[in-house]
Amino acid sequence: MAASLENNGRHKVVIVGGGFGGLYTAKTLAKADNVDITLIDKRNFHLFQPLLYQVATGTLSPADISSPLRAVLRKSKNTQVLLGKVNDIDPEANQVILGEQVVPYDTLVLATGANHSYFGQDQWKDFAPGLKTVEDAIEIRRRIFSAFEGAEKEVDPEKRRALLNFVIVGAGPTGVELAGAIAELAYKTLKEDFRNIDTGETQILLLQGGDRILPALAPELSQAAQESLEQLGVIVNTKTRVTDINNDIVTFKQNDEIKVIPSKTILWAAGVKGSHMGKVLSERTGVECDRSGRVIVEPDLTIKGYKNIFVVGDLANFSHQHGKPLPGVAPVAKQAGEYVAKLILLRLQGHTLPQFKYSDVGSLAMIGQNLAVVDLGLIKLKGFIAWVFWLLIHIYFLIEFDTKIVVVIQWAWNYLTRNRRSRLITGKEAFVEIQNINPNNPYKVEDNKEALKV
Amino acid sequence: MAASLENNGRHKVVIVGGGFGGLYTAKTLAKADNVDITLIDKRNFHLFQPLLYQVATGTLSPADISSPLRAVLRKSKNTQVLLGKVNDIDPEANQVILGEQVVPYDTLVLATGANHSYFGQDQWKDFAPGLKTVEDAIEIRRRIFSAFEGAEKEVDPEKRRALLNFVIVGAGPTGVELAGAIAELAYKTLKEDFRNIDTGETQILLLQGGDRILPALAPELSQAAQESLEQLGVIVNTKTRVTDINNDIVTFKQNDEIKVIPSKTILWAAGVKGSHMGKVLSERTGVECDRSGRVIVEPDLTIKGYKNIFVVGDLANFSHQHGKPLPGVAPVAKQAGEYVAKLILLRLQGHTLPQFKYSDVGSLAMIGQNLAVVDLGLIKLKGFIAWVFWLLIHIYFLIEFDTKIVVVIQWAWNYLTRNRRSRLITGKEAFVEIQNINPNNPYKVEDNKEALKV
Repeated sequence: MAASLENNGRHKVVIVGGGFGGLYTAKTLAKADNVDITLIDKRNFHLFQPLLYQVATGTLSPADISSPLRAVLRKSKNTQVLLGKVNDIDPEANQVILGEQVVPYDTLVLATGANHSYFGQDQWKDFAPGLKTVEDAIEIRRRIFSAFEGAEKEVDPEKRRALLNFVIVGAGPTGVELAGAIAELAYKTLKEDFRNIDTGETQILLLQGGDRILPALAPELSQAAQESLEQLGVIVNTKTRVTDINNDIVTFKQNDEIKVIPSKTILWAAGVKGSHMGKVLSERTGVECDRSGRVIVEPDLTIKGYKNIFVVGDLANFSHQHGKPLPGVAPVAKQAGEYVAKLILLRLQGHTLPQFKYSDVGSLAMIGQNLAVVDLGLIKLKGFIAWVFWLLIHIYFLIEFDTKIVVVIQWAWNYLTRNRRSRLITGKEAFVEIQNINPNNPYKVEDNKEALKV
Repeated sequence: MAASLENNGRHKVVIVGGGFGGLYTAKTLAKADNVDITLIDKRNFHLFQPLLYQVATGTLSPADISSPLRAVLRKSKNTQVLLGKVNDIDPEANQVILGEQVVPYDTLVLATGANHSYFGQDQWKDFAPGLKTVEDAIEIRRRIFSAFEGAEKEVDPEKRRALLNFVIVGAGPTGVELAGAIAELAYKTLKEDFRNIDTGETQILLLQGGDRILPALAPELSQAAQESLEQLGVIVNTKTRVTDINNDIVTFKQNDEIKVIPSKTILWAAGVKGSHMGKVLSERTGVECDRSGRVIVEPDLTIKGYKNIFVVGDLANFSHQHGKPLPGVAPVAKQAGEYVAKLILLRLQGHTLPQFKYSDVGSLAMIGQNLAVVDLGLIKLKGFIAWVFWLLIHIYFLIEFDTKIVVVIQWAWNYLTRNRRSRLITGKEAFVEIQNINPNNPYKVEDNKEALKV
C-alpha cells in the first residue's frame, strides 16, 4: 500500500461526503502543495444539521444553514468538488465509482454520515418523518403548519384533537429541540393567528424509551431539561416504547400499559443508522459494521487491512477511547477529519501519528427561548446562560465556513419579535385534506385527555 | 342585490386570493366594524412576486419574500384566513365552494391572479418552466445550478455547450431580470468556483417577439436596458419568435431564418393567462373573458349583472381608462384592492364612488448590480440611480406587510460580497444525469457559435 501513497509526486485524496467530517478533512488539506483533493457529494452544499430543527419549525430558511461547497472551497486550488452519488468502491483498484464514471484515489476518506433508522419498522417512515435533509425539514414544516390550518377548518372535535396532537418519538437533542420549538409555536407565536381554534389546546408528547431525556448529558441536566420542557407545556413520557405507528395513530407502551394517541403530526427523532456506503465498504473489504451499520474503524480511523481508507463522522464506530462508540455529533466528525488530514500529510513525509483521540467539548441542547442545557463535564449550565452559550457555539461553527452574519441578525430579530417568518407550507399542495380517522378505532377524545395526563 | 349588501347589521366579504389585490382589499377593510372578512388562499403566505427571480437565481430564500397571511392579518380581528382551494362559485346563492365546504358571502372579491401561458403549446411546459410560485423558483434554481454542475462533469464538448447555453423566452421585466442575474452568476459570482469549465463560456440568449425589450417602458429605456444587458454578456434577440421547444433544443425564427440552439436550461417568461377561476366565473355568470382568460370588468371593477362580485389584480381586464387593459403589475392590483374596499364601505352607508382610475406609478426593471431602468413618465432613470430607486421601491413594498429588515441587510451583504448564498439544489435528486442529445440532430457546436452571433 505504501506505493500508492506516492504517485508522481502528487498524492490524490478522494473524500466522499461534504458534512463536517469530509469538509474538515478537505479544509485541513487545502494548503498542502503535494496533494490533490476531490470532494464528492450528492448535494451542492454543506448542511449545518444541528440547526435543521429551526428550519422544520419555521424560524430559519434552508439557505441560512447551508454553505455551497464550491464557495467554501473556492480558494482551495488543490481541491475539486464533484457533484454525484458514489455507488461503489473498488479497494483493490483504488477507485470509487459514480455511475459510469470512475475516480481513482491514493487515499480514500469516507464520510457519508447516517440516515434514520426505524428499527426494522420501515413502514413507519411515511407516517413519522425524520429530520436529516433540507427536504425532510421542509416536509416536517409543511406537516406542522398544515396541522394548525387543518384544525382551524375542522368541525369534528375528534379530528381537530388529532390535528392538535403532536408526537415526537425520541428525546435526544433533536427530539427535545423539536418539542420545545413546537411548544413555543403553539403557546406563543401562533396564539393570536387563528379564529376558530385556541392553539393553547395543542398537546405535545415527547416519548423516550430510556429513563431520562438527553441521555448523553449529566442526569441533573436531563432533569432540568425535562422540567423546562414541562413548563413550556410539553408532556414528557420516559420509559415509553412505541409499538406501532400507522394512519395517524401512535401506539405506545408505558409501564406495561398500552396507550393509543391519534395524531396527524408524528415526528421521528429516535434512531440513526450508518449510510448505505458502510455496507458497500463492508462487502468490498470485509470490514465489520456494527448493528447500526457503522463501520468499525481502527485506532487511526483506517479500516482493517486498508491503510489508505479512512472512515470519519457518523458513519464510523470508533471505540478505542471509551470502549463504546463516540457519539454522532459535529465535534467528533470535525476532529476526526482534521486528524485524518494531518495523518495523510505526515505519511507523505514518512511519519505517522498516535491514535485518534477525541477531545470532548461537551454536549448541549436548546429547549426554547432563553432555555438550554450545556454539559461541559466539570461545568454544567442551564437556563439563560446556557442559552447564550448554545447560541455562541452555534454561531462560531456557522461562521467557520461562511460569514452567516445574516443568520445571527435573523435570530436576534426573531427573538425580539417572536416571529416565525419562514413558516411557509411549500412542496405539496398547501392545504390538508382531513383524512377520516378510522371509525372502528375505539379511541375517544376523553380517553385521550386521560392518556395524556401521565 | 341591494338587500344582500346588508345582513344582520354585518356585511360578509369573501376575498379569494392573498396576492396584492386580495391583501390590500382585506387590509383596507380591516378597520371596519360592520364587516366580516374571510380571505381564502391555497397558500398560507403572501408572495412578493416581483422578487421571485432573486430566489430562482440564488440570492434570496423563499421566506425572504413571503409573509405568512395569518401574521399579516393577525391584528385584523374582523378577518378570518382560510387555507383552501375554491373550486366553484354559486353567484345566485352567493356562495363560494371549497370541496365540500360552502362559504356564503354578501360581497365577493376575486383576486386569483394569473398563470403562465404557453400560447397553446402546453407541451413546452416541461422543458421551459415559468416563474410564478415558490416551487417554480426552486425548480428553476435547481436547473440553473445543475447545469453548471453537469458541465463541470461533462467530457463531450457538444453536451457541455448545451449545458452552458441558457435561453430565456420573453423580455418583459421577469425575462430581463433573469437574464441579467444569470449573466452575473456566470461571469462574476461563479467565475472561480469550477475547475474543469470556464463559466465565462456561458452563453445567455434573451429572445423577444417584439422589436424591443421591456415594451412597457419608453423606447429609450428599452434601448438603455438592452445595451446594459449586452455589456453584461447577454445576447439579446428581438423580433424573434420561438417555433419549437423540445428535448433541450429551442427552435426560433428570426428575420425569416430558422435557428436551432441546444440548451439544458430554457426559461419561460413570455406569456400569462388569467387563473382558472376566471373561466369558472364566466360559466356561472355569463361574464366575458378576453383571449388571455382575464375577466372583463365594469368601470367599478364589478362584473356585468353582479354588483356584489368584484375582480381585481392580474385576473381583471380593466379597459375603461386607456382603451387597453391595465398591466398585470403589483401597483394596479394594490390600487384596485383599495378602491374595492372603499366602495364596499361607502355602499354600506348608501353612497358610491366614481369609476376606478389607476394612478400610474411607472415601470421599472432590474438588470444587474448597479444597473436598472425606471420609467416614471416624466422622469426616466437608468444605471446606478435607477438601481437605488428600484431597491427603495421594493423595500418599501416589502416592509408594508412585514418588517423584512433581514432582507435589506441580506441584499446589502450580497452586494458587498457578490455572494449567492442561497444557491441550493434541492427538491429532486441534486445531481444531473446528462441526457443524450439526439444524435440525429444536425446541429453542431460550430453552427451554434454562428447562430449565437446575431
